[in-house]
Amino acid sequence: MPDYKAPLRDIKFVMSELLNSDSHYANLEGAEDATPDMIDAIIQEGAKFAEQVLSPLNQSGDREGCTWSESGVKTPAGFKQAYSKFVEGGWPSLAADPSYGGQGLPSSLGIVMSEMNGTANWSWGMYPGLSHGAINTLEEHGTEDQKQTYLTKMISGEWTGTMCLTEAHCGSDLGTLRTKAEPNMDGSYSITGTKIFISAGEHDLTDNIVHIVLARLPGAPAGTKGISLFVVPKCLPAQDGSAGERNGLSCGSIEHKMGIHANATCLMNFDGAKGWLIGAENKGLNAMFTFMNVARIGTAIQGLGAAELGLQGSVAYAKDRLAMRALSGAKNPDSYADPIIVHPDVRRMLLTQKAIAEGARALIYMTAQKADIVQSGKTEEERKAADELLGFLTPIAKAFLTEIGYESASLGMQVFGGHGYVSEWGMEQNVRDARIGMIYEGTTGIQALDLLGRKVLMTQGESLKGFTKLVHTFCKENTDNEHMKPFVEPLAAINKEWGELTMKLGVSAMKNREEIGAASVDYLMYSGYAVFAYLWAQMAKIAQDKLAEGSTEELFYNAKLQTARFYFTRMLPRTRAHAVTMLAGADTLLDMPEEAFII
Amino acid sequence: MPDYKAPLRDIKFVMSELLNSDSHYANLEGAEDATPDMIDAIIQEGAKFAEQVLSPLNQSGDREGCTWSESGVKTPAGFKQAYSKFVEGGWPSLAADPSYGGQGLPSSLGIVMSEMNGTANWSWGMYPGLSHGAINTLEEHGTEDQKQTYLTKMISGEWTGTMCLTEAHCGSDLGTLRTKAEPNMDGSYSITGTKIFISAGEHDLTDNIVHIVLARLPGAPAGTKGISLFVVPKCLPAQDGSAGERNGLSCGSIEHKMGIHANATCLMNFDGAKGWLIGAENKGLNAMFTFMNVARIGTAIQGLGAAELGLQGSVAYAKDRLAMRALSGAKNPDSYADPIIVHPDVRRMLLTQKAIAEGARALIYMTAQKADIVQSGKTEEERKAADELLGFLTPIAKAFLTEIGYESASLGMQVFGGHGYVSEWGMEQNVRDARIGMIYEGTTGIQALDLLGRKVLMTQGESLKGFTKLVHTFCKENTDNEHMKPFVEPLAAINKEWGELTMKLGVSAMKNREEIGAASVDYLMYSGYAVFAYLWAQMAKIAQDKLAEGSTEELFYNAKLQTARFYFTRMLPRTRAHAVTMLAGADTLLDMPEEAFII
Repeated sequence: MPDYKAPLRDIKFVMSELLNSDSHYANLEGAEDATPDMIDAIIQEGAKFAEQVLSPLNQSGDREGCTWSESGVKTPAGFKQAYSKFVEGGWPSLAADPSYGGQGLPSSLGIVMSEMNGTANWSWGMYPGLSHGAINTLEEHGTEDQKQTYLTKMISGEWTGTMCLTEAHCGSDLGTLRTKAEPNMDGSYSITGTKIFISAGEHDLTDNIVHIVLARLPGAPAGTKGISLFVVPKCLPAQDGSAGERNGLSCGSIEHKMGIHANATCLMNFDGAKGWLIGAENKGLNAMFTFMNVARIGTAIQGLGAAELGLQGSVAYAKDRLAMRALSGAKNPDSYADPIIVHPDVRRMLLTQKAIAEGARALIYMTAQKADIVQSGKTEEERKAADELLGFLTPIAKAFLTEIGYESASLGMQVFGGHGYVSEWGMEQNVRDARIGMIYEGTTGIQALDLLGRKVLMTQGESLKGFTKLVHTFCKENTDNEHMKPFVEPLAAINKEWGELTMKLGVSAMKNREEIGAASVDYLMYSGYAVFAYLWAQMAKIAQDKLAEGSTEELFYNAKLQTARFYFTRMLPRTRAHAVTMLAGADTLLDMPEEAFII
Repeated sequence: MPDYKAPLRDIKFVMSELLNSDSHYANLEGAEDATPDMIDAIIQEGAKFAEQVLSPLNQSGDREGCTWSESGVKTPAGFKQAYSKFVEGGWPSLAADPSYGGQGLPSSLGIVMSEMNGTANWSWGMYPGLSHGAINTLEEHGTEDQKQTYLTKMISGEWTGTMCLTEAHCGSDLGTLRTKAEPNMDGSYSITGTKIFISAGEHDLTDNIVHIVLARLPGAPAGTKGISLFVVPKCLPAQDGSAGERNGLSCGSIEHKMGIHANATCLMNFDGAKGWLIGAENKGLNAMFTFMNVARIGTAIQGLGAAELGLQGSVAYAKDRLAMRALSGAKNPDSYADPIIVHPDVRRMLLTQKAIAEGARALIYMTAQKADIVQSGKTEEERKAADELLGFLTPIAKAFLTEIGYESASLGMQVFGGHGYVSEWGMEQNVRDARIGMIYEGTTGIQALDLLGRKVLMTQGESLKGFTKLVHTFCKENTDNEHMKPFVEPLAAINKEWGELTMKLGVSAMKNREEIGAASVDYLMYSGYAVFAYLWAQMAKIAQDKLAEGSTEELFYNAKLQTARFYFTRMLPRTRAHAVTMLAGADTLLDMPEEAFII
């Protein structure tokens, strides 16, 4: 496994130069403390933690995995100590509500921390990551009592939290869940049912775990309109607020799975466990959306992390490994062969990873800024505008980035040849870990339906227009810039085509709703490449300006320009395939009888 | 893991209906015994072996893996018994030389067996698979004495064989290998060096293993022109021909790797081991090419197997698993949800796998027929023509099929949602196992250089023309067939564009040889989709004809037509991206300074 090195220069580039984080933070309500110097200092400290504490546990954690026994789940060696350091450093409280012990820093800053921790050690990062989702849910929907009892403990890091949604028969389709909640005389509820795939559902990092559980009240309407949300602790809080007697729930087993071995994926049995209602009866799914958006951005980070880790590993290897001579003649004549980084196809693999990692960082940070504004924007108008963009960008970030992040991890492994398939180098672990990203928190297919069906077509394309307007403005501003032509021309063309394709799909969906599902994944991937084109064009512009100003960081800015050029000439053309296939029609999928798939 | 069911109907379709295997076999020298009835009977028996003996050991083999100790390598429970049954059934000798105990059946029939065995249990299939490569090498290049001593034992299955090429510092670049061969007084050689990644290098299935080893003689020229080939047995043959005293070689360790856990990947130490020269001094690499072509078709089968296994698993799951309602209204109103096979995007994933699995079968069997003719064609002219097509198709089959086979395995897993990531269902094992296909026996990048550089451009495009002529003839024959229009028109367009793109690349490669490596992988993938278009158009034609003739197998032939339609509308458009990116130019890859990849 490569030693993770936080890409601080690029993080700074995206934050300050692309997204003007200084003015962004200055304009947020309550983020007055987030001065540029302070943010720099926090990121530097976070990088050290990720590099020095988490990265060394990534490979050993995969090998050892979690172990289950009746008394609980043991995390791999070093995980508990790392978590203690994390709590000591005050990291769990970074972006949390100051009324309950949080530091009140913007949530986009928390995203930077999640990126560094998650790239260094994804399995470990999921423990605080899931907790973060539970924190957000209680912050927004919990009662004052619930906040005092649970939120303060989770914000301090003393306890962690989970989200219990999935059951054996239902994942994407939560409307069919069966876990029951029976009201007790004391205002609490008895929760009974079995949840599966509960990440971080049981572990030995803390002495209590706060489960946020979806369940049905007696007589609740069928489907998604009859789901309520409950807080159900592993240990009931004692009088003094500490973890008291065990509640009626336990982890029945953990899954053996392809990757993320160091994060326990738990089957959770709730046997009349005591829980308390969060928010209104039967409105659980609405409350859950808060968590889901956070979790989706959180999962998008996994795509970024996989790309960054694969890039770091494979660039180092490609400089070091000697094989064959450059087709145009020896580049390293004193040795028996050239380093493989001289070969164009190796460079194609490295540049694909670089374009994905840096593009992903830009997309995630941009999305996170929208989330900041939704949470703490100063005017209703800017909050509303940000919310629309956030809704549009979230499924793209989640599905597109996990898809291309996985591709990137696989390329990172491919650069190593046979050595990549061997566990020693850590590249195959990166592929195995990354693979889950396309599945959990809503599969690529589910995100694509959300994007095309719910976000774009249900708003008559308004949510797309909210984004294409930004692109249009950028293109117009740079239309006379000769140096920007290779970026602005294709970007403007894609932006126009994006709207036209959407119109066509809208028309065919009016005739047959199945057309939405038949086009959705191609539409989502197309949209991802379009958003990346916008981001890479902006990054190219910044680099050109800096070089024109005579920046001393020529290497850095030239690399940005070169990567943008690579993106436009070698990745954006993938839209040519998606633009055709998204219009192929539902009949090409639905005409086949079920029994004909295998004969 | 799904219970593997050999797709006998499709195997028969490809063999008899697409590739006219009856007349093909009738025209081969020495294949007179291969009557249609006999071939059917062999395939039926082979299917039973794969389904009943190998398939049940696939998942347990992955879990248990191989274990190394100083005394050797233990294969997982049941592997040795399965191998004994394989030998008892006479399977190792199927396509081998009758002079040394073989049954002399055409090698393309062996490919069908390899497909069934490899799909049922890839790791197990590699033991006889590697042996097959060693057999071919000795058949073609061994002395009579070597054949009597080793070949007969390998053909009977009593011993197995391996290929020892790779060393720690060299895989793709064999010219730099360092293993030494010092001549002894008795005509033998002492082999000293360390080989890595030796599949099936050590195991407990047989009491001897015959290693075919690349090494350098004293004073041999540098590079590939100084490599010789040796046969080096684990145990020296005793007077009576049985495995005698241990030779000076041992397995030092086995690799921990992403997948194919049940096949031992060995580090082999040769410490003055006794070996004998195969073929001429310093001509080892030439002799090796025989093995390599066999091994490449063998590896292409892994792509097919991964696609077929994923398809079988995910179709069954998609019919069984209930989630959500069809967008156009409930299809299964009596239950709480519809089976997910009603959803267009699930069908997109299933049809992609189906188009890949069935297209791959067609491509491999077609390639295998060319190999039959090279080996046993009756005229020099047909042997030569087949050899050219074989050389052209082999890198495409190897790289394209392992790439899209891996994609297919990943889609098979995606259909399962979260359950796909869990080991229980076997779909994640399929992904892990399939991943090595793009690496060993020459990576995708190496195959692509072979195709574009060595095969196509070095023949001034003649080797491409050998294939496009076939396509052109087919298009011309069907130009007036209205029903074939949706297939013939795009096929003719691709066929024309293929030549034009090749011309353009030829021109730019004359100016700068780096352009070859800059375009090669896109060119290979484009070529794969083009070959598939030809095969799918032919399969559509056969299906249309059969339906017009009033075949009672309407479901089967309609499914072929529907899958062909899916391929043309939803997969062939991927060429739109590759056609653009292959012309992007080497400068988009080479302009970036090495130190700028990570800053």
